[in-house]
Amino acid sequence: MLTANLIRTKRDGGVLSEAQWRFLIEGFCSGEVADYQMSAMAMAVFFKGLTRTETADLTRCMVDSGERLPRVTDRPRVDKHSTGGLGDKVSLILAPLLACCGVDVPMISGRGLGRTGGTLDKLEAIPGYQTKITTDQSSRVLREVGCFIVGATETIAPADRRLYGLRDVTGTVESIGLITASILSKKLAASLDALVMDVKVGSAGFMPNLESASELAESLKEVGAEAGLPTIPVLTDMDQPLGRAIGNAIEVNESLDVLAGGGPKEVRDLTLRLSAEVLVETRMATDIANAEATLADALDSGGAKERFEKMVHEQGGTLSGHLPLGEQKDYVAYQDGWVQSIDCPAIGDAIITMGGGRRTVADVVDPCVGIDLHVRIGDRVERGQPLWTVYESQTKCPPIDPVVLSETEVSPRPLILE
Amino acid sequence: MLTANLIRTKRDGGVLSEAQWRFLIEGFCSGEVADYQMSAMAMAVFFKGLTRTETADLTRCMVDSGERLPRVTDRPRVDKHSTGGLGDKVSLILAPLLACCGVDVPMISGRGLGRTGGTLDKLEAIPGYQTKITTDQSSRVLREVGCFIVGATETIAPADRRLYGLRDVTGTVESIGLITASILSKKLAASLDALVMDVKVGSAGFMPNLESASELAESLKEVGAEAGLPTIPVLTDMDQPLGRAIGNAIEVNESLDVLAGGGPKEVRDLTLRLSAEVLVETRMATDIANAEATLADALDSGGAKERFEKMVHEQGGTLSGHLPLGEQKDYVAYQDGWVQSIDCPAIGDAIITMGGGRRTVADVVDPCVGIDLHVRIGDRVERGQPLWTVYESQTKCPPIDPVVLSETEVSPRPLILE
Repeated sequence: MLTANLIRTKRDGGVLSEAQWRFLIEGFCSGEVADYQMSAMAMAVFFKGLTRTETADLTRCMVDSGERLPRVTDRPRVDKHSTGGLGDKVSLILAPLLACCGVDVPMISGRGLGRTGGTLDKLEAIPGYQTKITTDQSSRVLREVGCFIVGATETIAPADRRLYGLRDVTGTVESIGLITASILSKKLAASLDALVMDVKVGSAGFMPNLESASELAESLKEVGAEAGLPTIPVLTDMDQPLGRAIGNAIEVNESLDVLAGGGPKEVRDLTLRLSAEVLVETRMATDIANAEATLADALDSGGAKERFEKMVHEQGGTLSGHLPLGEQKDYVAYQDGWVQSIDCPAIGDAIITMGGGRRTVADVVDPCVGIDLHVRIGDRVERGQPLWTVYESQTKCPPIDPVVLSETEVSPRPLILE
Repeated sequence: MLTANLIRTKRDGGVLSEAQWRFLIEGFCSGEVADYQMSAMAMAVFFKGLTRTETADLTRCMVDSGERLPRVTDRPRVDKHSTGGLGDKVSLILAPLLACCGVDVPMISGRGLGRTGGTLDKLEAIPGYQTKITTDQSSRVLREVGCFIVGATETIAPADRRLYGLRDVTGTVESIGLITASILSKKLAASLDALVMDVKVGSAGFMPNLESASELAESLKEVGAEAGLPTIPVLTDMDQPLGRAIGNAIEVNESLDVLAGGGPKEVRDLTLRLSAEVLVETRMATDIANAEATLADALDSGGAKERFEKMVHEQGGTLSGHLPLGEQKDYVAYQDGWVQSIDCPAIGDAIITMGGGRRTVADVVDPCVGIDLHVRIGDRVERGQPLWTVYESQTKCPPIDPVVLSETEVSPRPLILE
């Protein structure tokens, strides 16, 4: 098998067999297939795509490049993955919430890069919280708590890790097939029984429009089924941040509110819905309504918050109430009106400027900076009413005007699209 | 300037500026632009193409990555380049022939890989011939003889050398823009005043059909003009080998025949035409007919052969008449008919099998094996008439049947198409 011939086959619109993908991925890991060949292949895939079967084959090969997490209890193993968006703190709430309902959530998360935050950065705002623990340690936490949230190790789908690094610097990220294989390979390596995928649509997310988001959702569902991991995609709105809090410590605080039965309604609603999907899929609930009722109880009773605190404690963190934030500055409306839109890129860039996000992977994140948005699209606003609050630390927030008002009434946007 | 952004620009159909190409090529040479980025860019170019201006910019940047050969006389400097084909020995004849007519021919040639032979391999069939000489040595040969034929050095367009190596193993060879830049960068570095391009069309060449060959010809002409090197493309037939001899020593022998005023008519005709084009372009002749008459005299008088022998001598070779060949085996026609077609791939593969060509760059070539074809398409053949002769050495010729006969009359094919 000649690598150049395989690249030419894909370049000319052909389909590779599982044996050919295995040759490529094993060679990529051993060094026999060079980085420059893999990047040319990724570009050919960008233009010519992958069939569902090719995507499933590639996914399996990437799983086999590393180890699988061991099953440590008899409980169903589930997870949620999001394509990422501003203010998306659902993972922090969903993992302990589902653990309360009898399923294990072995969650492997990532860091933020660019405008969207990362679950690990948020959790590291909690003093002492360890995101880098051994498989033995994470197995122990899972057995005792029913969930953990950690970073990826070198042994989980190493081929995906290397390929992703290559795609990032060669303009080959935006391929439905490669995105699908990348997400599912890591989840398959976690030995899951079901996965719910939150596919964000809109200016603050990764997929700008419903069409491309639907295509990714369909691909995840079909390839997940073919690769042996039932995957339920849910399309959700990302034209405005999720919830009020954007930042690291500030999002932990909002998560604590939701875990205790309070917090913004949209964060609670989305978490319940995503959680309900996997409870039904793993037959831990008969239908979505039943599942959501059970889950709501776990929030309102304080059980979920207790579970979160237990996980934090087992992962080395010390948490006593809300985390401290930077210096507070409030901004008010200069006119009456309705909220027409939220400038998500401006908010994301302001957080990065203040040190709350990364420009490059080497940047260190300041946990205590953030922005609290007090309004959502469709809200009625009166002159003098607080619109947003900035929490600054070392670097001042750049001048922003993220809340765009309209003089005529604006409808609220639905959160769950499909 | 971020390399990944430049790749994305091209991937999305954009046009890069000269400064952006310079950044890429200089970075590629210095190591700041990684091989895996350049190969992804080459694949994006394969799909999205290069404008003429981009191709000229890229060409200039590749020339600037190395040194230019010095001008050593006041004579015009010209060269011929062929896209390659079976039995194409024109370079061996054209260089000394043009040198007889008052122009310098500083010819930098390549080796054979796959089915098409290489000029350097043919010349190395001559005992002692050195293809690797210093710039000082080649300048001296040019001053005294008016021509040299050598291999490329590390200092001539090194960016092209590296990029070509990368394209070869990443399925990104077949791009009109990249092919054009690769050819012209080496020729510009040779400080030429005019270039004639023999673009082969047909099964034994690189471009299978007239459409793709015309596209390459147009690109070479326009980009050559934009980059400051007048380039005259000539489209010629490659559906049958050029001349009778295919191999290394055997092609030197046929070249000696043509240089002495004899040899196959089609080899003589094509050499005269290609040579005439550059004589007219450099105003060494008023028109093609005049130029061809002068050139024909140089062949028929023995002047060109003498010039060839002088070049061989100055480059260290010892030549006394025809070179020795392997063991001779003749094959005859089993029926009457007309020659309908020649199976060029079968002939090329047979030469490789016998050791006369390379499968990989590391293979050593046996100069004395070869095939002599005694007929061309359209020839009338009678039962028992010799059709081809094989010259074998270590490895026997595989069973081949390269001459396909028809029971009805077949027209000869024109040699020069456009």
